[in-house]
This record gives sequence, C-alpha cells and structure tokens, in this order.
Amino acid sequence: MSQFTGHHILSVSQLDRDAIEKVFAVANMMQPYAKRQKRTTVLDGAILGNLFFEPSTRTRVSFGTAFNLLGGEVRETTGMSSSALAKGESLYDTARVLSGYSDIIAMRHPAAGSVAEFAQGSRVPVINGGDGANEHPTQALLDLFTIERELRYEGKGIDGLHIAMIGDLRYGRTVHSLSRLLCLYKNIHFTLVSPPELAMPTPVIDAIENAGHRLTISTRLEGSLNADICYQTRIQEERFESQAEANRYRGKFRLNQSIYTKHFQSKTVIMHPLPRDSRAEANELDNDLNQNPNLAIFRQTDNGVLVRMALFALTLGVEHLLTRYEKDVIWHSNKSSE
Amino acid sequence: MSQFTGHHILSVSQLDRDAIEKVFAVANMMQPYAKRQKRTTVLDGAILGNLFFEPSTRTRVSFGTAFNLLGGEVRETTGMSSSALAKGESLYDTARVLSGYSDIIAMRHPAAGSVAEFAQGSRVPVINGGDGANEHPTQALLDLFTIERELRYEGKGIDGLHIAMIGDLRYGRTVHSLSRLLCLYKNIHFTLVSPPELAMPTPVIDAIENAGHRLTISTRLEGSLNADICYQTRIQEERFESQAEANRYRGKFRLNQSIYTKHFQSKTVIMHPLPRDSRAEANELDNDLNQNPNLAIFRQTDNGVLVRMALFALTLGVEHLLTRYEKDVIWHSNKSSE
Amino acid sequence: MSQFTGHHILSVSQLDRDAIEKVFAVANMMQPYAKRQKRTTVLDGAILGNLFFEPSTRTRVSFGTAFNLLGGEVRETTGMSSSALAKGESLYDTARVLSGYSDIIAMRHPAAGSVAEFAQGSRVPVINGGDGANEHPTQALLDLFTIERELRYEGKGIDGLHIAMIGDLRYGRTVHSLSRLLCLYKNIHFTLVSPPELAMPTPVIDAIENAGHRLTISTRLEGSLNADICYQTRIQEERFESQAEANRYRGKFRLNQSIYTKHFQSKTVIMHPLPRDSRAEANELDNDLNQNPNLAIFRQTDNGVLVRMALFALTLGVEHLLTRYEKDVIWHSNKSSE
Repeated sequence: MSQFTGHHILSVSQLDRDAIEKVFAVANMMQPYAKRQKRTTVLDGAILGNLFFEPSTRTRVSFGTAFNLLGGEVRETTGMSSSALAKGESLYDTARVLSGYSDIIAMRHPAAGSVAEFAQGSRVPVINGGDGANEHPTQALLDLFTIERELRYEGKGIDGLHIAMIGDLRYGRTVHSLSRLLCLYKNIHFTLVSPPELAMPTPVIDAIENAGHRLTISTRLEGSLNADICYQTRIQEERFESQAEANRYRGKFRLNQSIYTKHFQSKTVIMHPLPRDSRAEANELDNDLNQNPNLAIFRQTDNGVLVRMALFALTLGVEHLLTRYEKDVIWHSNKSSE
Repeated sequence: MSQFTGHHILSVSQLDRDAIEKVFAVANMMQPYAKRQKRTTVLDGAILGNLFFEPSTRTRVSFGTAFNLLGGEVRETTGMSSSALAKGESLYDTARVLSGYSDIIAMRHPAAGSVAEFAQGSRVPVINGGDGANEHPTQALLDLFTIERELRYEGKGIDGLHIAMIGDLRYGRTVHSLSRLLCLYKNIHFTLVSPPELAMPTPVIDAIENAGHRLTISTRLEGSLNADICYQTRIQEERFESQAEANRYRGKFRLNQSIYTKHFQSKTVIMHPLPRDSRAEANELDNDLNQNPNLAIFRQTDNGVLVRMALFALTLGVEHLLTRYEKDVIWHSNKSSE
Repeated sequence: MSQFTGHHILSVSQLDRDAIEKVFAVANMMQPYAKRQKRTTVLDGAILGNLFFEPSTRTRVSFGTAFNLLGGEVRETTGMSSSALAKGESLYDTARVLSGYSDIIAMRHPAAGSVAEFAQGSRVPVINGGDGANEHPTQALLDLFTIERELRYEGKGIDGLHIAMIGDLRYGRTVHSLSRLLCLYKNIHFTLVSPPELAMPTPVIDAIENAGHRLTISTRLEGSLNADICYQTRIQEERFESQAEANRYRGKFRLNQSIYTKHFQSKTVIMHPLPRDSRAEANELDNDLNQNPNLAIFRQTDNGVLVRMALFALTLGVEHLLTRYEKDVIWHSNKSSE
C-alpha cells in the first residue's frame, strides 16, 4: 500500500518528487514484462474501464495494453455520440454508473476539468488520460521518465539538466506539464525557442523562475546549445494570424540531421510528443533522423506503457506482488532481445 | 443444468415466476464477485459476442463486464455502418457467421423482432439486449430484481406491492415490460400517472386487469400515494402534437425532494431507467434527490450486472460451478467495503 | 519453431506448397478448440493488436476470436478518423509506436501495399487482414483450406480439382488469390464464367496457363459442368458502363437450387466470399440453397477461425505446445456436438 492506493491521478500538481520517484521505480520494475522476458498475472480478473470520450488511438491502446500486461481485462468506449452524455446526462451520473462496471478507470474527455468532475462521482480510482487543454499527466510522466532513463545512460540525473524546448510552446500542452514537473527538480536550464506569437505562457515562465531555474528565451535556433534534451513540438500554421506571418517562420523550427549537427551535441536526446507529421511539406522532425540513436521518440511511447503499468499497479496496490505472480513467456518474442 | 441451459433469452414472456426466481437466486450469488470480495473464473476461456448494432454504451459495457466478472473474454461490435447488414446481408447469414465466433451472444439492434430473427440463425444462445420498441428483457429483470431487493430490506416481497409509474407510460418500453413481469405476481397495486396523450397502452392495461391487479389511473400527482416504489420515466416534449400542448404538462411530472416529500412515504423507493437528463431545463429527476437514500437508480445499474451475470451463468449451465472456481481478489478495491 | 516463427504474413506469394500444408496441418489441430471439445491457453498473456484502419466486422472479429481461442488478449482499433494516420503520420511511425503495444498485429487498411509498408516499421509480426485491392491472404487460405476439407470427405485432394468460378472475376480479389494458390497444385481445371467486361484479368490467366492447368472460359453457364467446386462471386451492377449493359446480364450469374441442379453434380460444393446480398432483387446466391448440404459458405467462415488460429500459433512459435496447455471446457456448448 502506498499513497497512491485507491486514489485518482488527475494532475501532475498532485505529485511531489518522492511520488514521482516511486512511480519511476515501479515503472522500471515493469521493464521485463513489457519486454516479454517474463509476464505477470497480478491483475488477473481486474477490469479497466477505458473510457475515451474523445478518441485517441495510441493513448487508448497504450492504457489497454498496460492493463493487459498486468493480467487484467479491458472494457472500452470510444467517442461520445453513443453515450448518454450526449443526451444531457451529468458527468456525476455517468461516473456513478460506469464506475460500477470496472475496478479502475482511464478516461479522456475533450472538456477541461471534466475528468476531475467525473472522478467525484466515481466509486473507483480514475486516471486522467487527457482532459482537453487542461492536463495529460501520464504524458508528462512518460516524458520525464524518458529523460531520466536517457540521461542515466550518460551517468547523469535530472538535477542539473539542460533542456531546449522548440516550436509551439504556447499551445503545446505537453511542454507546459513537463516544465511544471521539472520545477520539482534542482538547477534546470531551460532554453525556450519559439516564434514570439507562440511563446511559453507567463504562468509557466513564472513557475520556472520561482523554482530558481535558469532560463534562456530565443526566437530562433542559433549557436551551439549544449543541451542534454531537445524537446521539439509541432508548429501548426493555422495558429498564426495570417499565412504571411506563418511563412516568416516556415522551416525555422524544424529539425533534421544537419540542423541537429549544427546546433546540438552528439549526445543530445531528441524528444517529441508524437504523432509527427511526416509529409514532405511538414516542418517538424525529418525522417532523416530515424537512424540517429539519440532519437528517443519511440522510446517515449514504449516508456508510456511502463509508466501506465506503474500507475495501475500503484493505484490498485499491487506493486509489491508483481514477482509473486510471475510466469514464463512461452511464445516467440522479438521484444525479449531488444 | 436448468431450463435456461443452451436457450435464448429473447422476451420476458418466456419467463414464469419460477424462472424469474431462479434468475434472482443466481443473481444474488453473484454479489460477492461484483463487490470484489471474491472472484470466479468459471467462464475462463469462453467468448461473448457483444453485438451492438445499435450503440448503447452502458448496456454494452454492462454485458461485457458481467462476462469478464465470470472470467470470460469479450469480442464486440458497435454500430451497423461497417457491418455486412448494411450491404443487404440477411440477419440469418449474419447470425450463422458471427455465432461461429463466440460461445454466447448479447445483441442490440434498432429493429423490433430483429434479435429473435437473428437467433434463428445462431448456433449459440442469444440474449436480447434491446430490439427497438419491442423488448429489453434484461432491463425488465434488473428493474424487478431491484424492487425485490429494495423491498426485502423492508421485510416485504413483490406480492402485495404498490408501484406508482409516472411520466411517459406510452413510449417507455421499460414500464411495459416491468408491468408484464409484475402480472406474474399477486395483488399488485398499479398507480399510473401520465398526461392523457402518454397513457399506458391498452394491451398493458388489459394484462394488468386480467391478472386481477388493482389499477389507479391519474393525469397528475395528487395526495399521498402510499407507494412502495415510484418508477419515474422521462417525458420527451417532442412526443406532444404541439409545444403549447407540451407546455401544459411542463414540470408536472418531474420529481424533486419537495415533491417527493409531499406525495410519497419516507421509504418509497425511487427508480428510473437511466440515463436521466440533468440539465437545468429538464423535468425529470432532480439532482437534489442524490442524497436521498431511497434513490435506487444507481443500485438499478449495479443490479444490471448481477442479473446479466446470472443469465450468462444459467444459459451456459455453470451456475452450480461458481464457487468451485473461486479465487481471492488481491488488488485494493473500494467496492468490497460498499 | 517453423519458417513462420517471427515472420510477417503479407501475401500468398510468400507461400509454397509445403508452407500451405503446414498451415493446414496446424489448422486441423485447432478443430477441437474451435468446436469447444477442449480449450488451450497456450497464448495466455499474449496481446494481439487488431488494427482495422478499414472497418470489417467479420474479419476483425474472426481474428480476435482466433486469438482468444488460443488464450490471448486483444486490443483493437477500428477506422482511421481517430488515428494519427489522418494527421500525416507515416505508416512507419504508426507501426513503430503500435508494435510496442502488442506481441503480434493483424491489420486491415484500404490502401494497397500499406500493410507491407507498415510491417517494415513493426517490431512484431504482422498478418495482412486485407490491404485494399491488393491482398487478403487469410481469405485465400481459408478458401483453399475449405476446398481441401470438402474434397477430403469425398476421398479427393486438391490435385486434379475442377473448379468453376462464376460472376465478377475481374474485381473479385478472392478469386485472384485463390487462383494463384491453386497454381501451386497439379492438374487443376478452371472453368471461368463471367460477362466479358468482368473477365479474369490477364495476369491471373497467364499464371494459370503457365502452371499448365486446364482452362475453360465462358460468358454464360451452360451444360453440365462436372465441377467439384462452384465458387460464386457477386456482380455489382455499377461495374458496367450503363444500366442497359447491366440489364443484359441480370439473373444470368445467380445461383439457386434449380440452376444448381441443372448445371452441377449432386456433390458440387458451393462457395462464396461472404457477405451475400439476400435481398429479393439481388442476383447472387439464393436462400433456397440454405438447406443444400453442399452449401459450404458458413463452413468457410468457420474455417477462417481455424486458419487464423494456425497462423497465430505458427508465427508465435507455439504450434507444438497446444496440447500441453489444454484444459477442459466446463460450460455447455452446442458446438461440441456439431
């Protein structure tokens, strides 16, 4: 039993550094199960209600897979049209009813605050899988977990980290939540690179400064950044007031191998909150980086499974029972050798 | 093995009082599994085909959860657009094919009679999850089961019950089916309160009278009703010929705490076939009743899981094996202490 | 471990006669599990990613059921609108991400070649569930497996077979793939009956001739065909240049009991790649054939489960472990006695 047992996970603001370290410790214990070296049936018989009132294939499947990897079953719903919410049912009623159908709920909904409102009616723990512009705590945790793991290979920790965040820092929910989590750590250097129209919002800037972190703000990539992490986010051209304005920035915030070589260290880790647009006209993260060993974008999504497994195990209070219910994997798996 | 083993559940008219009591007895045995005091793997390896050709989130998830709680797996389909039915395939063909993919089927379809037609082609038992205006037998059973349980706490049985049905009694499928089930019992007093345009249909009235039950019909709530059960259904304003007509009845068939106090006993149980519209302009069942311990609407949906578990167990002939396949619940559950 | 272990199944052209015989041998071993005489939990804990970017209820459910019958879990996605593919994500990225969520993938997608492209990014084996006009290898295998089983009851093999293919041979993907598989066998007699506009494409004709098979081409059914198999495909009237043209052929390529009696042997097996249009105006395969014991269309879909189970078992390298993980079926099943 931990502080997580029986509780909702609604916001990164619930978490202090100890709580995060607990999540990461359990997530690391999940590695052999996700890599199929072993499996565990600790949640055999438990039911996840995977309620995606806003569709999101990869987040939905990631939660479902995480629960299956612990031995549990998944009941799902996608979209809102067939739901009673569309007919005027309150989130309280929906939560009272649907929480009778599962042992834990993962929920995404387009309205900010909706998951917390739902949680008030729920009789089982609710994990926020994204509530509109508000929060997506499991994404923030998997980002930070990825940073921690990538740096550990270099013998570093999160304290003292230099992270460059590039692109749309205004509307990118993930960079806000990640920045807030990093405020719990010591001596971080943030380099923020964005068009002025898409700068990091003032409340996040204030939080970074109040935490005593070092802050460098720029409107273009220049010089050698000496960053440990380069966190890239997509600029959507419709965010600008005019196409003429958008054209001024076109291609200035993309990353490809030659731009990477020019501005970053040979070990700078490249992150991105997928999906990335891989079409020729996109200005984002070029496919020529696919062979770069520092491209961590697919390790991020793999880590998402570990972090979600950890949150399920902690919330249901079984994190100490994983090995007791361990079994062999008897089928052929490429993952064991990854 | 019981009379249910291997058979379809298509209509409440299949059931006599003994059959209903058998279902309820098995549903009561499901309580410790649904409350997570124990679990059972009696249907480990069995597959439910959960075929919702008409979407209905809560009924679909309730069936799926009921099957998971018995240890089984669920394959699902939602909607009709991607189905061969949309391309002229007969229900017979669909049934022949899809019944090859599961051990039992729960099915909802918008057309009256469609589930029975489907069942003729199916090689596995089919449970009707609602076929348009026709039948929704598991809803009727969960309603009656709820009445039985709520009254049992008061030391009463279904015989001798006084039930008030309020609102749209013409189009409300649930009150028709529940009335027909109650015709199998003795000495029931029905108080039917509805606008004249939305009165209970004559065939149901005839069935009630032929069963020798007592009948009181009214077009408004008045006086003290002395009812054991108040079953409320929503009035949809588009049912009236004109808005002017609808306005005459607005607010006359809603229930809130003060109306409840005025017309009902302190122990009258409040029921409703959810979802309820909780918007301010709705005239249905006010949120100020949420703290009223007699509000049984969420116990109804919880009971739906028990009843559906019972029907699965009976139809697949495993109702006597539940305890033999019992296991401990090892994760933290708030439900055990409910 | 076989040649299948850890490999993708993308096209029938990967398969030689030995490989097909291996698939069929394993599919035959699946019969007692599908018939519910026994069950196996050999894939307990394994996860199938059932990715249907193009909806197809029966193929999707057939794959999911096949995996459940081996003891595994299924995570699914249906349609493309909620997928990152709609936002410009490459199939490579989608595959890298989603292959982190499962042990094996079954995938359908509307674009020809898409499944092979996806497979290049996948870290787990991918089974093609249909990629537009290109390939649907599990359908071709289940068709050939059905032929093999139906003829075996007559003491015959595939070598020396006489098959009549009737209807739309131009756009019918299934008859193309089946013809190519039959080219691996000896001494086949193809009778192809179609309107000239909907004749078998030249590359398939060439393949049949290069294999040294006997070929009879006709634009209408005439005389006694002496065929072992009659494989019927639907003619869609919109395939013709004008309705007048379509009307010329209306009713000429349908099959009913009297047409069957006139042109075929009493043991000719009737096949069709369901769904069939059963509406009165359809000209396809009449319902009056439903009692004909040679109508194999529902045995085809049942066999699809066996073939898909075999491909999963072979690809995951567990085909030799099925019986070691065998368990009893404890629920009532009509299937055991079929």
